[in-house]
Amino acid sequence: MSSIVLGMGNGALMFGDADVSDVPDSDLIELVDPETVNINAFDLSVLRGDGIFEATTAWKGFPVSLEIHLRRLVRSARLMDMPEPNVAAITRGVQAVMNAYDDPEPGPMLRIIVSRGLDVSTGVGKAAAAEGKTAPTIFIFEDGKGTLHTPDPITMASMTRGYPSDITARAPWLLNGAKTLSYAFNCAVHRECDRRGVGDAVLFTEDGYTLECPNSTIVGRYGSMLVTPDPRIGILDGTTQREMFSWALQEGQQAVYKKLPIEELRDADRLYMVHGGWVIPVKELDGKAYECDPAEIAAINDAIHSGRTHDDALSIGPTGDYEF
Amino acid sequence: MSSIVLGMGNGALMFGDADVSDVPDSDLIELVDPETVNINAFDLSVLRGDGIFEATTAWKGFPVSLEIHLRRLVRSARLMDMPEPNVAAITRGVQAVMNAYDDPEPGPMLRIIVSRGLDVSTGVGKAAAAEGKTAPTIFIFEDGKGTLHTPDPITMASMTRGYPSDITARAPWLLNGAKTLSYAFNCAVHRECDRRGVGDAVLFTEDGYTLECPNSTIVGRYGSMLVTPDPRIGILDGTTQREMFSWALQEGQQAVYKKLPIEELRDADRLYMVHGGWVIPVKELDGKAYECDPAEIAAINDAIHSGRTHDDALSIGPTGDYEF
Repeated sequence: MSSIVLGMGNGALMFGDADVSDVPDSDLIELVDPETVNINAFDLSVLRGDGIFEATTAWKGFPVSLEIHLRRLVRSARLMDMPEPNVAAITRGVQAVMNAYDDPEPGPMLRIIVSRGLDVSTGVGKAAAAEGKTAPTIFIFEDGKGTLHTPDPITMASMTRGYPSDITARAPWLLNGAKTLSYAFNCAVHRECDRRGVGDAVLFTEDGYTLECPNSTIVGRYGSMLVTPDPRIGILDGTTQREMFSWALQEGQQAVYKKLPIEELRDADRLYMVHGGWVIPVKELDGKAYECDPAEIAAINDAIHSGRTHDDALSIGPTGDYEF
Repeated sequence: MSSIVLGMGNGALMFGDADVSDVPDSDLIELVDPETVNINAFDLSVLRGDGIFEATTAWKGFPVSLEIHLRRLVRSARLMDMPEPNVAAITRGVQAVMNAYDDPEPGPMLRIIVSRGLDVSTGVGKAAAAEGKTAPTIFIFEDGKGTLHTPDPITMASMTRGYPSDITARAPWLLNGAKTLSYAFNCAVHRECDRRGVGDAVLFTEDGYTLECPNSTIVGRYGSMLVTPDPRIGILDGTTQREMFSWALQEGQQAVYKKLPIEELRDADRLYMVHGGWVIPVKELDGKAYECDPAEIAAINDAIHSGRTHDDALSIGPTGDYEF
C-alpha cells in the first residue's frame, strides 16, 4: 500500500512554458522511495532554504484549492526571481502522485516543494551548470502518515513580527508575501507557543496591525461579516481563506479584506485559523475566550472539501487601492 | 583526486556529550559521493531551512577560526532549541573530511551543516522517531571547486533589515543572532545588490543602527581604531572579525564593539567586509569612495591564515553591559 508517495519532478519541464500535453507522465515525474536519500546535499533547499512551496490537503483524491495554490506558487517564484512554474506540467505531476496513493486515510497532506536548484557557488552546482543543468529542483509528495489537520478548537497568542506595517513597500528583499522554504522563524514561533502553552500564534506589526499565523491565515467574524488582513501588508494571499470567503458569500454573508488592527481582531465574535484546506476554530486569543460552533466549522470544511467553493474562490481577492 | 569531499556525520554522536575519544573515525563520519543524492527529502533542512551552519576556509589544511565557529554553532543550537553540538566529535569529523581532500587549491571552502533531523510531522520522520532515530542531521564538506573568496575590493549599498534596534531583546523567536539555514532573505539581498550593481550590502535597523552584511561582518577603521557593531544588537558574533581584532591588538591598534549608527559607519576612513577567514576591503558604500590598502589587507589575511591571530581571537568579544 502506498501511504507516502514521493515524486521527483523534471525541473526543465516544470518551469518555463513548454507544452507538456504530449509528454508522458514518466518524463514529467519519477516516483522514488520516500524512505531513502533522494536530494543532493548541495541543493539550495538544503543549504539555503532558497526555494518556495505550497501545501494543502488531498481530500478523497480532490486536491483542495490546487489552482489557487499554484497561482500563489507562481507569485512566490516571481518574488524570489525564480523561473516561472509551468502550472500545467506541475498539475500533471500532482495528479501522477495522487494516482499512486492508495491509503484509506481520506485527507493526506499534499505538498509541492521547489528550490532554485543546485547551488552554483559550490563545485557540484558549478559543474552541473557547466553542463547546462540549472533547472529548479521540484518534488511533490502525498503523505497519509504524517500529522494531519483536525478541526479541534485551538488556543492562540499574539506576537510581534518585528516589522512596521509599511515595510513591504519599502523593502521587497524581505520577501514578505512569498511562501519560502526559509521557515526557521515560523518553526521558532511554534516553539515559543509550546513554551507559552498555546496552540498557535498570530503575528502583528510593530505598529499594531494583524498579519498572519506562522503557517496559516487568521479570519475574524463580526456578526455576519468575515474579515481578514489585506495581503498587501506583506503576508501570504490565503488559499483556504479564499475558499472560506467563497462559502460566506454563498451563504449570504459578507467577506472583507482590510488593514486590521490587532485590537480589532481581538474584538471579533469568533476567530478562525485557516490553512491547508481546513478552517480551525480559535477558542482563545491572549487569554480571551471565543465562541466556537462545531456545526459551522463542519459546514465550512464540508463545503471546501466537496469542491463547492472552488470556482467562486478563484475570483476572490482584495480590491481597490491599498494604503501602507 | 578529491577536490570536493562530503562527509555525512553520525548525528547521535555529534550531539550530546558522549566521549568519542575511542570511537573510530568510520563510526563518526561516512564519506559519500558528493555528486549523487545523499539527503532525505523529508529532512528539515530541505523542507523548512530548520537548521544551522558554519562556513570558513581551510587554508593549506588549517581550518581558520574553527574553534570560534564551533562555539558559535553551539550558540546557534541553543537559540534554536536544538541539542548541544559535541564539539570534540565534530572537530574529529572536520579533520576526517580535511584528511581526504587533496586538491592543489590552497583555500577550499569548509562548511558544517546541521538540521534538526527528519521532520517528525511527516510520515517518514514519524516512523524514524518511533524507532528512536531523532538525532540531528549533520554533514561536513570541503570544496575546492566552488566560488572562493578573494581580497578584491568590493562596492556596497546599505539597506534596511526592517527591524528596530531593540527587537532582539523583545522577540527571541526572530532568531536574530543564530546562523540558520533559512537564508532566502540573505540570498534576496544579494539579488537586490545585483540589481543595484553593487557587490554586497550592509544592513541597518529602522532606527539607523548598523547590523551586518547578509553573510559577513562589517568593520570600520577610524585612524588606528577598528569598530564593529556589538553583536548583542541581534547579529552574528563575527568569527573572522575576531581574528581581525586580534591582529589589530597585536599591531598596537585599538578594536571596539559598539552600537554603531549607519551614519557613523559611512564616516569611517576605511571599511572591511569580513567573513569565512577573509578580510575584504570595501571601496565604495552608498556611492562614497573609501581608500583601500592592498598591503594592509594582505598582512591581515596572512596573519589570520597562518594561525598567528588564532589564540588571541578566542578571548575577544564585547564586554560590559549593552543598552538596547
